Amino acid sequence: MSYDMAGTDLAAGPPWSAPGGAAHRPLLAALDIGGTKIAGALVGTDGSLLHQLQVPTPADGDRHELMAAVDHVLDDLARLPEWQGVRALGIGSAGPVDIAAGTVSPVNLPGWRDFPLRSEAAEHPAVHGLPVVLGGDAVAMAAAEHWRGAARPYRNALCLVVSTGVGAGLVLDGRLRTGTTGNAGHLGHISVDLDGRPCPCGSRGCVEGIASGTAIARTADELGWRPGRGGDATAGAVAAAARAGDPLALTAFDLAARALAAGIAATATLVELDAAVVGGGVAKAGPVLFEPLARHLASYTALSFTRGLRLLPAELGTNAGLVGAAAFARTALPAHR
Amino acid sequence: MSYDMAGTDLAAGPPWSAPGGAAHRPLLAALDIGGTKIAGALVGTDGSLLHQLQVPTPADGDRHELMAAVDHVLDDLARLPEWQGVRALGIGSAGPVDIAAGTVSPVNLPGWRDFPLRSEAAEHPAVHGLPVVLGGDAVAMAAAEHWRGAARPYRNALCLVVSTGVGAGLVLDGRLRTGTTGNAGHLGHISVDLDGRPCPCGSRGCVEGIASGTAIARTADELGWRPGRGGDATAGAVAAAARAGDPLALTAFDLAARALAAGIAATATLVELDAAVVGGGVAKAGPVLFEPLARHLASYTALSFTRGLRLLPAELGTNAGLVGAAAFARTALPAHR
Repeated sequence: MSYDMAGTDLAAGPPWSAPGGAAHRPLLAALDIGGTKIAGALVGTDGSLLHQLQVPTPADGDRHELMAAVDHVLDDLARLPEWQGVRALGIGSAGPVDIAAGTVSPVNLPGWRDFPLRSEAAEHPAVHGLPVVLGGDAVAMAAAEHWRGAARPYRNALCLVVSTGVGAGLVLDGRLRTGTTGNAGHLGHISVDLDGRPCPCGSRGCVEGIASGTAIARTADELGWRPGRGGDATAGAVAAAARAGDPLALTAFDLAARALAAGIAATATLVELDAAVVGGGVAKAGPVLFEPLARHLASYTALSFTRGLRLLPAELGTNAGLVGAAAFARTALPAHR
Repeated sequence: MSYDMAGTDLAAGPPWSAPGGAAHRPLLAALDIGGTKIAGALVGTDGSLLHQLQVPTPADGDRHELMAAVDHVLDDLARLPEWQGVRALGIGSAGPVDIAAGTVSPVNLPGWRDFPLRSEAAEHPAVHGLPVVLGGDAVAMAAAEHWRGAARPYRNALCLVVSTGVGAGLVLDGRLRTGTTGNAGHLGHISVDLDGRPCPCGSRGCVEGIASGTAIARTADELGWRPGRGGDATAGAVAAAARAGDPLALTAFDLAARALAAGIAATATLVELDAAVVGGGVAKAGPVLFEPLARHLASYTALSFTRGLRLLPAELGTNAGLVGAAAFARTALPAHR
């Protein structure tokens, strides 16, 4: 269990703990559930992270072991005196999720299939009686970038996470578009190559199969790129080689950028976007990704109404999941509705 | 000028013309502006077409000649005694449109580029003082199918027009998604083949370039299909040949269906749809289009949250443009807002 006391930001509101008094600064509780870690935080209603902690995800655990890890994080959050100010709990989970049913079936957590995470979390003694809002992790990232990050100025935005997979969320008319089941914006699994490589999802030519970190490493290997002395053949190593001018590594990033560009352009053509925000581990490659991405985006967004689209790097980094989960919780506050 | 008195539907509301009285049934005026005809109608607030008329579009005319044809239709509508009941005018126009600016730049009408159609129509003496609502023709068709047609039961639907081009409109959360400029849902110009044939729009591998009637005829020709004695090589003739079992004609329709399926699946993956409604001249091919479309759609919508998507033929036919323009007008009525 690691703690990161991320500043208390007293200036932003009334005191959350007055000695001898009952006043508690209103707060949001946030959970970010992924394949490697389960993170929790107390978050101000302005999006500032006050306390955060995390435990490793028992990824191979059964439904009870997984939920015990979630409860452990909730126990530790609830022990903080500021917990008394918590008004709602938001949960961003690896997907697919079903927010209509309140269930999750994360691909990387086989112990959870149609697991009723929302009601299970609501039964935690410290949570009981609080509203619990569930959503997918990529949608949480989009909520975070729209609330506190790069998408803040825009009413219509697509926010992508490009890492081992490709996820995304949509903001339309200034509001998160979750879709009925909470999976809207699932850019990684639209086909941009109708005759392309079969995807594990069952379709073919999916953006994720060309543009994810995994796909970039595979493309580089298929092109004949070979890692240096350390033997690191990940997308990060391909990015380093591309920055050093390796033509095969550059070609692998160019193909990934084309697939992302086609997917972003399709979204802009379908719903009219003001901005596309790109984050995640692969986005850390920087210009090696963003330069070909901007170039291909200009070619795929040929129609007048898509031409003004802004391409921006994400701002929130690894905390986006927690900030986004807090954004989910915030939708349950009376002032927000 | 042809008139089609499409029934007066007295049963649907109070009398629209009471002898000696001042009562006028509230009505909507509708204009549908296309490359071959400009149609106008008076429409009940329930969507019933009361009077309709049309003139040929002077497609090669300058801005004034084109507007004179529109004014001619408005003159004739305004001469009907029922015009007194008109509360708003809706206009569906060939695109691209810009509803933020109130302008249109129809590809097929070179005389109109950034033409201020909304304000010009508002200055017609009979229209003066009425709200005027402008939108694109494909979005109008979607509005019509959602108001009075196949999409009526669904809160999230994509409605396509597959004819010489491919257009579409989106309904999200029970409301038309026009987008800021009015071009949202422009499915014809999303790329489903990132390495595909260059499209006149500037992109490549666009749905329209594979699935439009024009594209189907070209694909059939490229495959070596040859028309019969009459020499008819249009998509309609390819459809007839496909129905008779011609393998090349069937292949041309199969490729079109794949592109449409990839585009519809991408939309369902991005925004979560309940239904896709397909109309337009090519949809009249019937099972020759719908059977491979359903098959490919099942393959591209592999994710759990897209699997329930319903595929439906459009219901409204050639009147969809006028009904949709009336649906635009309806959004200006106080009761609708």
